[in-house]
Amino acid sequence: MSETQRQDHWNALHKHAEEGDTASLQTLLESLEPSETLRAFFRLSATDQRRLIELVDPERAADLLDDMPESHAAELLETLDAATAASIVEELSSDHGADLLGELGETEAKAILEEMSPANADEVRDLIAYSSGVAGSLMGPEQYAYPDTANVSVFLTDLAAKRDSVEQLPQRVVLTDDRGRPSGAVDIVDILLAAPDASLHSLARSVATVPVNATLEELEEFFDRYESSGAPVVDHNGRLVGRLRRRAFADELSELAQSNQLKVQGIVGGEELRAMPYPLRARRRLSWLSVNILLNILAASVIAYFQDTVSAVIALAVFLPIVSDMSGCSGNQAVAVSLRELTLGIVEVEDVFRVWWQEVSVGLVNGLALGLLIAGAAYLWIGNPWLGAVVGVALGLNTVIAVSIGGTVPLLLKRFGADPAIASGPVLTTITDMCGFFLVLGLATLALPLLV
Amino acid sequence: MSETQRQDHWNALHKHAEEGDTASLQTLLESLEPSETLRAFFRLSATDQRRLIELVDPERAADLLDDMPESHAAELLETLDAATAASIVEELSSDHGADLLGELGETEAKAILEEMSPANADEVRDLIAYSSGVAGSLMGPEQYAYPDTANVSVFLTDLAAKRDSVEQLPQRVVLTDDRGRPSGAVDIVDILLAAPDASLHSLARSVATVPVNATLEELEEFFDRYESSGAPVVDHNGRLVGRLRRRAFADELSELAQSNQLKVQGIVGGEELRAMPYPLRARRRLSWLSVNILLNILAASVIAYFQDTVSAVIALAVFLPIVSDMSGCSGNQAVAVSLRELTLGIVEVEDVFRVWWQEVSVGLVNGLALGLLIAGAAYLWIGNPWLGAVVGVALGLNTVIAVSIGGTVPLLLKRFGADPAIASGPVLTTITDMCGFFLVLGLATLALPLLV
Repeated sequence: MSETQRQDHWNALHKHAEEGDTASLQTLLESLEPSETLRAFFRLSATDQRRLIELVDPERAADLLDDMPESHAAELLETLDAATAASIVEELSSDHGADLLGELGETEAKAILEEMSPANADEVRDLIAYSSGVAGSLMGPEQYAYPDTANVSVFLTDLAAKRDSVEQLPQRVVLTDDRGRPSGAVDIVDILLAAPDASLHSLARSVATVPVNATLEELEEFFDRYESSGAPVVDHNGRLVGRLRRRAFADELSELAQSNQLKVQGIVGGEELRAMPYPLRARRRLSWLSVNILLNILAASVIAYFQDTVSAVIALAVFLPIVSDMSGCSGNQAVAVSLRELTLGIVEVEDVFRVWWQEVSVGLVNGLALGLLIAGAAYLWIGNPWLGAVVGVALGLNTVIAVSIGGTVPLLLKRFGADPAIASGPVLTTITDMCGFFLVLGLATLALPLLV
Repeated sequence: MSETQRQDHWNALHKHAEEGDTASLQTLLESLEPSETLRAFFRLSATDQRRLIELVDPERAADLLDDMPESHAAELLETLDAATAASIVEELSSDHGADLLGELGETEAKAILEEMSPANADEVRDLIAYSSGVAGSLMGPEQYAYPDTANVSVFLTDLAAKRDSVEQLPQRVVLTDDRGRPSGAVDIVDILLAAPDASLHSLARSVATVPVNATLEELEEFFDRYESSGAPVVDHNGRLVGRLRRRAFADELSELAQSNQLKVQGIVGGEELRAMPYPLRARRRLSWLSVNILLNILAASVIAYFQDTVSAVIALAVFLPIVSDMSGCSGNQAVAVSLRELTLGIVEVEDVFRVWWQEVSVGLVNGLALGLLIAGAAYLWIGNPWLGAVVGVALGLNTVIAVSIGGTVPLLLKRFGADPAIASGPVLTTITDMCGFFLVLGLATLALPLLV
């Protein structure tokens, strides 16, 4: 699609939204690819976005909200009146609806729930009650559970009644005992091959369940162990309360990974789109920057302490930012690998010494190479081999320090309950800057007679 | 699980591998959670890892290889003799096998293929032929395709024969015409509710296919548009050649996202685990660091140019690293948001002016705040308001420059075919460092009489 066409679409969306022309809006939205829709939508002003959502039918509005990041969808919901918002939430899956309402203020969420049909509202309310990041907050209702006394034709009759609303038939149905606890599961394959009067019980095999408060790590164990496309979720009495689809779990993991990537680069909260209001974007970014500038001033105070040395060998001022930046680069590589291994679950805090040792081996090689490079550059420029030696040794040693800190800090932060994605970088650069400045200027002070 | 237990497991793995005690190895592996297995495995030396893979039966070895990142699995395969490697690849899904063999040298891959059963080898060979990142490289065989003349009982007979090997029944089966082209699809739900003599044709609805050379972006459009758990893949004649599972596609996207996160932090190739041999790890990291150090020296040459100013006002040496680091932080936030929006597909290179403008608004606010902070700190420390003004104005302006570059460079790099994840950081920091040093020292040179 050419940029001109895109511009046309966007202009048309804008015009239809402003004029309140619902019919044209719907026709246009239907003709666009989902990704094009989202792109055009995010180019609209906040007012036009709200108008468009209000104008189109709730089902289409729900589709749009489904495609965009959660925080932005929640913000949009907040700007609508409760009745309109409720009609859209009714069209979302109950777990997604619960996620969005969970991000709103309590009063707003309550107002919307009151406008919904009582059954749907109850379902969503139950899900909001679970804290985020556990099975309960990710599950939906289990639509294919049957008493273990039922036979195949009971299932078929139920399926025929639901036919029009079936989107994804699961791989298996769940059987429950007389107290509502899962007692087995029957593969759809076996139902296909069975006679209508066969009892489901006779086709059943054992069923693995997850508790409603299972964490993401426990869910990962579960889905690694079982190939199934979903898991029955049970409460503390072992009663079936819902179904967690593998896809809902995978989506949650992928949102988390993307949010971590933003955090690593200093986006507090782990989410920002440029369509968000700019005071919010500025404030969030600034909260991280202002911590960083204080840490930077702290680190640079080391330079202030060695002022006399700098003023005696002014060339050192050129190398201080290089040492600071290069140590940051080396350290950040180590941070990245540790975050990756934490995500894969192959390291934990107990591995900290092994990780440190594996970083030191790489740091020694790279420190030697970088040290020689910068020493050579310093010598070529200034012509004093001792200056080259000071800068080279300092960068070499500081590279080893940087990878040691970069590799281990994420594990230690996680151990102490801090978020390694957001905090590793600032901790790393503050320590390595201080060490780097201290090494360059300390060595230079010792070797001062040879440098001037 | 406690650390002592973990240590015990690891010791036992190590001992059994060394002693060649296959039976104990298998028993131990069966008792461990998948994530624990991987963690213990990655603590083994490269030799022990190879031994273990050789000792356990091919199915279990394939399970292990399935769980670890592709590049590491490929390296392990490379160390095995062709016959052992072949027996393991036979146990992998054909698309995964093709991915691994695709990472090996041509001779090694050929040797392994020759040891495999001809049918499996052909399947894998076909898949290797597709370039990575297109539908063909991600698909597996389509196991549930039937001529559109078949009836329900043909399907049921086939299913009964396959019963033991069925792991995931798809939501629908595909019908093909007499030239092997998909002509429709039948939902499993409808088969469940139909009589055995009903023709599949009478139950069919239209089917959406993806071409074998569809890119990841096109696949994303497809899976956004259709709720289905998989897509029939067709060649350029429209003939059915395989099935792409949604999960295989989602896994590929998530690998890509993780690899991008590593690249952003300077891990060339987008993959590193500490279990890899350290010369390889050092070399890959160094290739990025050595480019960076040259760019750093280039940027720092601006300081060398202004040596006289620095030597007249030595306090400037303290502020240069702060300005460099803070501009890098601000710019990297903008890079992160642009990478995120590129991933979501809501920006492209045509949006570069809009993105720039949205960054400037945030940059002005944050530049003002950071500029005031650093000006205040400089004034408190040195007592000269003009020095505060120079440093504050320089950091303020450079913040606007940094976010402008950080926001737009990823889009421009992508436009010109470069990888924005790996290249945005170095481009950003080089330009902002040069601008930052130039602003601080240029303004200081102009205001020199007021500073000394």
